Amino acid sequence: MTAAIDPFHAIAIGELAYQLASQGRSVIHMEYGQPSTGAPAAAIAIAHEVLDADPMGYWENPQLKERIARLYAEEHGVTIAPNQVILTCGASPALVLALSTLFAPGARVALARPGYVAYRNTLKALHMEPVELDCGEAERFQLTAAALAAVEPAPQGVIIASPANPTGTVIEPDELARIAEVCAQRGIAIVSDEIYHGISYVGPVRSTLAVAPEALVINSFSKYFSMAGWRLGWLVVPPALVEPARARMGNLFLTPPSLAQHAGLAAIDCRDELEGHVATYARNRELMLDGVARLGLSHIAPPDGAFYVYADVGHLTQDSLAFCRRMLEETGVATAPGIDFDPVHGNRFMRFSFAVSTALVEDALARLEPWFAAQPRLAAA
Amino acid sequence: MTAAIDPFHAIAIGELAYQLASQGRSVIHMEYGQPSTGAPAAAIAIAHEVLDADPMGYWENPQLKERIARLYAEEHGVTIAPNQVILTCGASPALVLALSTLFAPGARVALARPGYVAYRNTLKALHMEPVELDCGEAERFQLTAAALAAVEPAPQGVIIASPANPTGTVIEPDELARIAEVCAQRGIAIVSDEIYHGISYVGPVRSTLAVAPEALVINSFSKYFSMAGWRLGWLVVPPALVEPARARMGNLFLTPPSLAQHAGLAAIDCRDELEGHVATYARNRELMLDGVARLGLSHIAPPDGAFYVYADVGHLTQDSLAFCRRMLEETGVATAPGIDFDPVHGNRFMRFSFAVSTALVEDALARLEPWFAAQPRLAAA
Repeated sequence: MTAAIDPFHAIAIGELAYQLASQGRSVIHMEYGQPSTGAPAAAIAIAHEVLDADPMGYWENPQLKERIARLYAEEHGVTIAPNQVILTCGASPALVLALSTLFAPGARVALARPGYVAYRNTLKALHMEPVELDCGEAERFQLTAAALAAVEPAPQGVIIASPANPTGTVIEPDELARIAEVCAQRGIAIVSDEIYHGISYVGPVRSTLAVAPEALVINSFSKYFSMAGWRLGWLVVPPALVEPARARMGNLFLTPPSLAQHAGLAAIDCRDELEGHVATYARNRELMLDGVARLGLSHIAPPDGAFYVYADVGHLTQDSLAFCRRMLEETGVATAPGIDFDPVHGNRFMRFSFAVSTALVEDALARLEPWFAAQPRLAAA
Repeated sequence: MTAAIDPFHAIAIGELAYQLASQGRSVIHMEYGQPSTGAPAAAIAIAHEVLDADPMGYWENPQLKERIARLYAEEHGVTIAPNQVILTCGASPALVLALSTLFAPGARVALARPGYVAYRNTLKALHMEPVELDCGEAERFQLTAAALAAVEPAPQGVIIASPANPTGTVIEPDELARIAEVCAQRGIAIVSDEIYHGISYVGPVRSTLAVAPEALVINSFSKYFSMAGWRLGWLVVPPALVEPARARMGNLFLTPPSLAQHAGLAAIDCRDELEGHVATYARNRELMLDGVARLGLSHIAPPDGAFYVYADVGHLTQDSLAFCRRMLEETGVATAPGIDFDPVHGNRFMRFSFAVSTALVEDALARLEPWFAAQPRLAAA
């Protein structure tokens, strides 16, 4: 039997959004987790040059691997060799690479619920077993050392995400150190998804490598570097796993896009432009936090990073997909239903992505206020 | 236990080649299976436009799916719906997608030996079992219906490659129909790798879909369309597998590069430029066939397509990797060792890629003639 994999429901919402837009409706896209900005200007400039000069065969950029290794030294005080960096076609295949390098079918891998839908589905597609740990509002929807210590028998692995999707919450440094300790004691391999690093409202977030040097770390150019459609990411592996991970990369994926590897190298040094985007997200976050309070959505964890608000709408619906669909049809604001992130409790949650312009956040909230005010409360809530 | 995966040995040769070139040596790259030409001019022009106009988020190009579906109607007389086309980040992830959609761990999948290294390794990485069928010079290194009918018990699947890597040989239409018949009778699912379609010296090669409508077909923009480093390919799936294949694409890979999807659409209609490349390959093929005869390499199957010559050098070596390495060091001509394609007999084979300029083919042969003449024959040969 091949594995049954859930679809992304946000994609169905996105398709409806584009359909409405093509009918002339004004649509605000808050359903996908991607910046509405493009790549930094210097990255685009180098891409133009390369397009005219380079036939672009299969290629791995050694300078990019060196630069990424230096990033860990500069920003996290962590020393890694350039060959520990495996360049990938985005974070999604980096996760496939990490799981396939570490685990065999049947392996049990713990993760927070709610969490990014592809963690669960990729585990299932590889015939591994997701061990979902309920992480509620009290834990700010994040994994804790205590919860991981209580899993019996010990899972072979754990996926950590900080800042997390769909909530944007960060694991506190002390808690992360305790999680690393539990993993070391119990022989649990760590896969740390750091794709939202750089987008933080609580100061710099340190890499899990600082407390767990053997962790496999996923990152990408899709979020902070604003290059989602370029499909470039990376996986950091410990020295002992460089060869098996490289062999998988070569066979399962071959190489990442050549142009993105040129542009990505330039993007790393476009800090002013990128920090400008983060400043916009910070303004949008303030507006959203005020706004969702006015919408009557009081059960949220204020995001420490990323660009999401995950809100409990259980007083209004027990079917978040239908709710998101109707809200889109009636207001033009597209969002992601909670069931993408939590198959158990997600029917009462929704996720707003505020990686759009500040004007669009304001527009969205202005449309949503009267709409939410008009929604009847459920009797059971 | 995670699966043990062999590395690509051609990559080690490639690294040595770049190292020698950086020392000022003149190196001719015949080790990788990629065009030395770039994307068609119209594809590059549209890429420049898109770079300046589009922030390039996650995206799937509906026009490209329609255009590819039309390609099957125009060139193969096969009707498929656009949603049967899953756009991928190249042929490698398309194979992962095909295998993961069709099979579970433990599945037995037949394939020709010699064959493309990633078939065997990707099967192993997904914990499936490659059932390698020896295909020698008598079968022009290709799978036959008889060989497939003789596998006991029947495998769950088969990977067909025509034109094939490393030999360039094509399965004759009648034989392909017989293979499809054996598969239908025995319940064997077909994965047909058609990545070298368009590069043929024996007239048009028809898609396996013409004889097996349920086959999963892999193709890519890397070979005929000369866009290897853009990382764009596709998988055609039968209607019943559209949803499971799309769910895997979204979770394991997300989307292919946006820029490549714009450029690829333009490339499909650049026939004159692309046929010019094929004409170059045809000239190179003639030169190579004359040339390898002068080198004393008589055991080859003249390629019907692709841009390879797979030659038996067993009278000179029993260690093709060491032989290729020494040949590169002494002549500057880089080639791929047979062990990448055949773990059993590959120690006595090597693969030349002639997807370089005609001048470089002439230069390579001029260097190799005196070198081969000076090699001692093995006593046992």
